[in-house]
Amino acid sequence: MASLKGNALIGQSGGPTAVINQSLVGIVEECLAAPGVGQVYGALQGIRGVLDEEFVDLGRESREELERVALTPCAALRSVRAKPDRDDCHRALEVFRAHDIRYFFYIGGNDSAETAHLLNEVAVDEDYEVRLFHVPKTIDNDLRETDHCPGYGSAAKFVIQALQGDNEDNRSLGGVKIDVIMGRNAGWLTAASALARRGEGEGPHLIYLPETDFSLESFVGDVDAMLAEHGRCLITVSEGIHDAAGNLIAQPKEKDTFGNVQLSGTGFLGDHLAGAVRNGLGSALRVRADTFGYLQRSFFGVVSEQDSDEAREVGRTAARLATSGAVPHGSVVILREEEEDGAYRPRYDCCPLEKVARLTKEMPAGFRAGDHDVSPAFLDYLRPLVGELTRTGRLVGHPVPKRL
Amino acid sequence: MASLKGNALIGQSGGPTAVINQSLVGIVEECLAAPGVGQVYGALQGIRGVLDEEFVDLGRESREELERVALTPCAALRSVRAKPDRDDCHRALEVFRAHDIRYFFYIGGNDSAETAHLLNEVAVDEDYEVRLFHVPKTIDNDLRETDHCPGYGSAAKFVIQALQGDNEDNRSLGGVKIDVIMGRNAGWLTAASALARRGEGEGPHLIYLPETDFSLESFVGDVDAMLAEHGRCLITVSEGIHDAAGNLIAQPKEKDTFGNVQLSGTGFLGDHLAGAVRNGLGSALRVRADTFGYLQRSFFGVVSEQDSDEAREVGRTAARLATSGAVPHGSVVILREEEEDGAYRPRYDCCPLEKVARLTKEMPAGFRAGDHDVSPAFLDYLRPLVGELTRTGRLVGHPVPKRL
Repeated sequence: MASLKGNALIGQSGGPTAVINQSLVGIVEECLAAPGVGQVYGALQGIRGVLDEEFVDLGRESREELERVALTPCAALRSVRAKPDRDDCHRALEVFRAHDIRYFFYIGGNDSAETAHLLNEVAVDEDYEVRLFHVPKTIDNDLRETDHCPGYGSAAKFVIQALQGDNEDNRSLGGVKIDVIMGRNAGWLTAASALARRGEGEGPHLIYLPETDFSLESFVGDVDAMLAEHGRCLITVSEGIHDAAGNLIAQPKEKDTFGNVQLSGTGFLGDHLAGAVRNGLGSALRVRADTFGYLQRSFFGVVSEQDSDEAREVGRTAARLATSGAVPHGSVVILREEEEDGAYRPRYDCCPLEKVARLTKEMPAGFRAGDHDVSPAFLDYLRPLVGELTRTGRLVGHPVPKRL
Repeated sequence: MASLKGNALIGQSGGPTAVINQSLVGIVEECLAAPGVGQVYGALQGIRGVLDEEFVDLGRESREELERVALTPCAALRSVRAKPDRDDCHRALEVFRAHDIRYFFYIGGNDSAETAHLLNEVAVDEDYEVRLFHVPKTIDNDLRETDHCPGYGSAAKFVIQALQGDNEDNRSLGGVKIDVIMGRNAGWLTAASALARRGEGEGPHLIYLPETDFSLESFVGDVDAMLAEHGRCLITVSEGIHDAAGNLIAQPKEKDTFGNVQLSGTGFLGDHLAGAVRNGLGSALRVRADTFGYLQRSFFGVVSEQDSDEAREVGRTAARLATSGAVPHGSVVILREEEEDGAYRPRYDCCPLEKVARLTKEMPAGFRAGDHDVSPAFLDYLRPLVGELTRTGRLVGHPVPKRL
């Protein structure tokens, strides 16, 4: 396939991550170095900026500021939650032609992959040659084909550090603590909390994922059992938990522009679960709930180095595959190499857009244990993505004999 | 005053901070080095451990683990929310006599200072010689006499980093974002969010403190004005905001063992304010609320170096004052030296227990600006306590001319 001459355009879509701008800068640096690429533009607010011709010239940014941007969470080009229809795609291609856009990179989740896929179909129909790549990002880690998603490792690290502290808090003051963590359809981020455990009997003691059915009655029983065993109970729960009939435990309150029920940005589920524990086990029990909310996806300064490196590399890979002419379109994936020494090594490749578009990857059964824990296999999967963790300290606590 | 021979006992009380164990380790190291001190004990769960004779021998802990403990958030000796009465104090002194406790250090807030004060009164009545020190800690920064409280700087840093990320998130996706921050009677921690601003027009755009009266109507008007000016609005609000009649905006739900209304561990206030904005400005507006909850006081790994150093030093100071015989009892304070070079330098001293017991220090009028912002004087006060902040990056965004 011949190399294609023209300009490149990059957009960012969906919820932010801590490392989404690493991918942006990775694409920019490879495009600027590619002989076939003229200008490197950014579309403001993803597909909206494409349709409105709202572009900025990324080639004119200083290298120094680009590196600061790479370290900053949340979409530097601003984001959007909107999916184009076929008419929008025709308009987008009109804009591509007007600006000689021959490379388009869309950083986002499975909705962004669908946008890229639809754009590609329309481009084929119109016989307009353009390289279209989806660059994965999501704290939810729920994209198909890739071993894991850029953004997940850093969000997982935030959750782990929060739980490391919260386990000490719960140990210090006792009672029941419930932490509600993001994850609508898949429990990957909530599951990460298990890596905060510093040993047997340490929290989180219970982990509830949307991959299994949730019952308030069993939940209160589980909490009671943990209180009996450990004298306290620290719980992590995904915002997307549902009963056996599929009804969300967090009652639908609001829908976003995709028609998805809004589960984040409300304390309802945590308060509801805390109330259930108080009702079931007595109001004298100290019960508290926190909803991590948007902090876990945009907190400044808590980043997994591995995640950060990989986010840069998926951006570079997309730009290399596109500009070398190796592949006309696709979604970048991270593959986990099976090394004989057991070391973790990521490899970068791409897969067809339609294999990622719209679809969700749940946590497989082998990564779960019973209906309120994760398996050792999951912890092995997660560890290299989060990187080195600092451990908390703990007094041995040599007892002093009583004298009275 | 002659040096006193006997054992030392340390307790921790109230809510945790990120650096409360620095103070613990500071007391331990100075006591172990003091010739007059025999054993150095820790009371488990503060005053409860004193009354129940639940002690651990801190002198037998390894130096290495003590240093790891110093870096770990939340009371390593476990905490308690209980205030002793006079009878309890008689019992405590009985325990002191049985274990030859001549030095007692209580790390906590104004309730802990009151406990130390009451213990001291009873000791004087009983003619039992014991050195009693209150060692300050609180993320709320609301203790009298001291310039600021150990624990505040680190919690403030957490709040700032959260807001640095959240400002990018709000800029990226637009709409209104409300962050509810701890602070029942004083707005110090919520006010700290102002240091996250990266320039004119950047969030947080509105800051509401319990030092001024809050009106839902004015609030919605303020938000509307900010939306008109900046196209988005990021808000920080203290959990303790109240109307002109003194009624909390977060409706009382539960009381803790002190009879204080429990404001933390519930998403009520955030959801309530978000609902008010939607009602007033239209349901099409994107409105989200997060309640930072317990994360801000126990998060692992986000610590101000200055705060950490000062927390260690207040512990050391208490132990030095007590064991040298310089002062029989008091509450350690941090004083801000007025340096000609403008540099920040803390000095450590102590004040009478009764000047700190029970009382709360609100933010002075000079640290506030109008009814929804802080003053430059407050930012000057705060900056050295938080230490160096990494700034987020931002694309210049050179516009590309439209062609269609």
